[in-house]
Amino acid sequence: MIHTHQTAPTQFVEANGIRFAYRCFGKTGGVPLVFNQHFTGTMDYWDPAVTDGFASEREVILFNNAGVSSSSGEVPTSFEQMGRNAAAFIKALGLQQVDVLGFSIGGCVAQEIALAEPNLVRRLILLGTGPRSGEGMAGGTPEGNQIFGATYAEPDHLWLSVFFTPSQASQAAGRAFLKRFRLRTKDRDPEVNEKVALAQRAAIAKWAAPRERPYDYLKAIQQPTLVVNGSNDVIIYTMNSFILQQNLPNAQLIIYPGSHHQYPELFVRHASIFLSGAEGREYLSFENGRPFATSGRPSYAKLRN
Amino acid sequence: MIHTHQTAPTQFVEANGIRFAYRCFGKTGGVPLVFNQHFTGTMDYWDPAVTDGFASEREVILFNNAGVSSSSGEVPTSFEQMGRNAAAFIKALGLQQVDVLGFSIGGCVAQEIALAEPNLVRRLILLGTGPRSGEGMAGGTPEGNQIFGATYAEPDHLWLSVFFTPSQASQAAGRAFLKRFRLRTKDRDPEVNEKVALAQRAAIAKWAAPRERPYDYLKAIQQPTLVVNGSNDVIIYTMNSFILQQNLPNAQLIIYPGSHHQYPELFVRHASIFLSGAEGREYLSFENGRPFATSGRPSYAKLRN
Repeated sequence: MIHTHQTAPTQFVEANGIRFAYRCFGKTGGVPLVFNQHFTGTMDYWDPAVTDGFASEREVILFNNAGVSSSSGEVPTSFEQMGRNAAAFIKALGLQQVDVLGFSIGGCVAQEIALAEPNLVRRLILLGTGPRSGEGMAGGTPEGNQIFGATYAEPDHLWLSVFFTPSQASQAAGRAFLKRFRLRTKDRDPEVNEKVALAQRAAIAKWAAPRERPYDYLKAIQQPTLVVNGSNDVIIYTMNSFILQQNLPNAQLIIYPGSHHQYPELFVRHASIFLSGAEGREYLSFENGRPFATSGRPSYAKLRN
Repeated sequence: MIHTHQTAPTQFVEANGIRFAYRCFGKTGGVPLVFNQHFTGTMDYWDPAVTDGFASEREVILFNNAGVSSSSGEVPTSFEQMGRNAAAFIKALGLQQVDVLGFSIGGCVAQEIALAEPNLVRRLILLGTGPRSGEGMAGGTPEGNQIFGATYAEPDHLWLSVFFTPSQASQAAGRAFLKRFRLRTKDRDPEVNEKVALAQRAAIAKWAAPRERPYDYLKAIQQPTLVVNGSNDVIIYTMNSFILQQNLPNAQLIIYPGSHHQYPELFVRHASIFLSGAEGREYLSFENGRPFATSGRPSYAKLRN
């Protein structure tokens, strides 16, 4: 039987004293793509249009990191430790090299995996995320705090505000996403509890804290990286995706109008071009050569009128 | 005979009292793609890997705007007037709708075409360009002024510094570009004279001058737009591509590591996805819905350490 997002059984593997829950599906034989999930999300929270989209060309691995939902253990209070747990999980599967995708706080974890285990990671996809000390990340954005603090008729309607913009087109795409999101009915992950949210918030606070030369660490991430966002991300400001691209040695940036969730097929197509061999090889030979000239450095005071 | 970048004959058409030189090649029957050239460039300055790349799927139209090289008339001292001349040229070909690509100052002209003749333009590709009053555009960047002011062993080596970064990979891509660039030996365009450069500089000065709420005019460009640049454009700072994307109502941004000229095949692939029907239709239904929240507006002071 060929498994999909909806049918792939939840499996378990032990590493670092943690029993990790995971699901695998898609075309085997190449470099698998490991997905790192957003704040309070489980394996069920990925968009099947994205996961099954990738699965037609490569093996997709979803998992819950330590302490999240069906995985045992405690959620660490740093992305660094979450990255180490994720790397232990990947190695416990017997894998020597993977591509890593991280969304939102999963993108912070993905960066930490690449830093801790550079040889384990071939390419990186950073989706709707930001760098350490990113713009508006400390304490969360006012918009994000309002959205996460509100109550919703159906709990999962929260994601219509988190993932999509208020435009008619974006909300229509959001309702289609929620339908796909609810399609898996058997073997769903248990929802996370408040303890998970608290630990993840503590990790965000550490990551977001102001520090000297906060973006220097990005120079150590040598992997070809694709940075993706929508134009109006109010949870982690879109500016942070531009900052990632400008400071990573070898990164491509794609920003979609509105929310990137509106374009699952287009995103999969762009990301597949990035991950696949032909054009991908160009990235490998690249160095982000010219240092940003201090003399000509523009001010960024007036991005908008 | 099927024509290519190298073999397409230079043809002429009259409009606005100007005899426009142009070349057409590629697959006919769809919406043609009209190319608007950079500072002091002629039709010969396009990368054949790009023009022939597009030509496999669509009709490509190169032309010299008024007063440039083989076209008659005077170069106007505003992009607005260059845009009107370009629109007159397009209509003189009997075309009712085209896609418009503009590179560098050609991107300024492309914006003016869309503003002056919104019904003439289906989609827009803005390559290595910026908005009115863009960052570092007034008086040119220090790096750009140094590069354009220097002398070179071969005159066309200038473009190795303008189009490519100093990295080994980028310079190798630059040398390959120069080889392609020199391949057309018959029926080449005459080089432009100093008068052309002066008039184009005057147009840049008007465009770049500081003004109140400089980006408001972008709201009037409703066409689906693809904005593309390299990560370290020192002629028109890369930040300007991000500003375009953030202020255009319906724009996608792609930034490549280094210079976008390093990736002609990848650029053609991305731009073809954008121009072609399937995914393209998504853009048409989009509104850049959520206004940028003033409360959460980040400061852009620290893009780099």
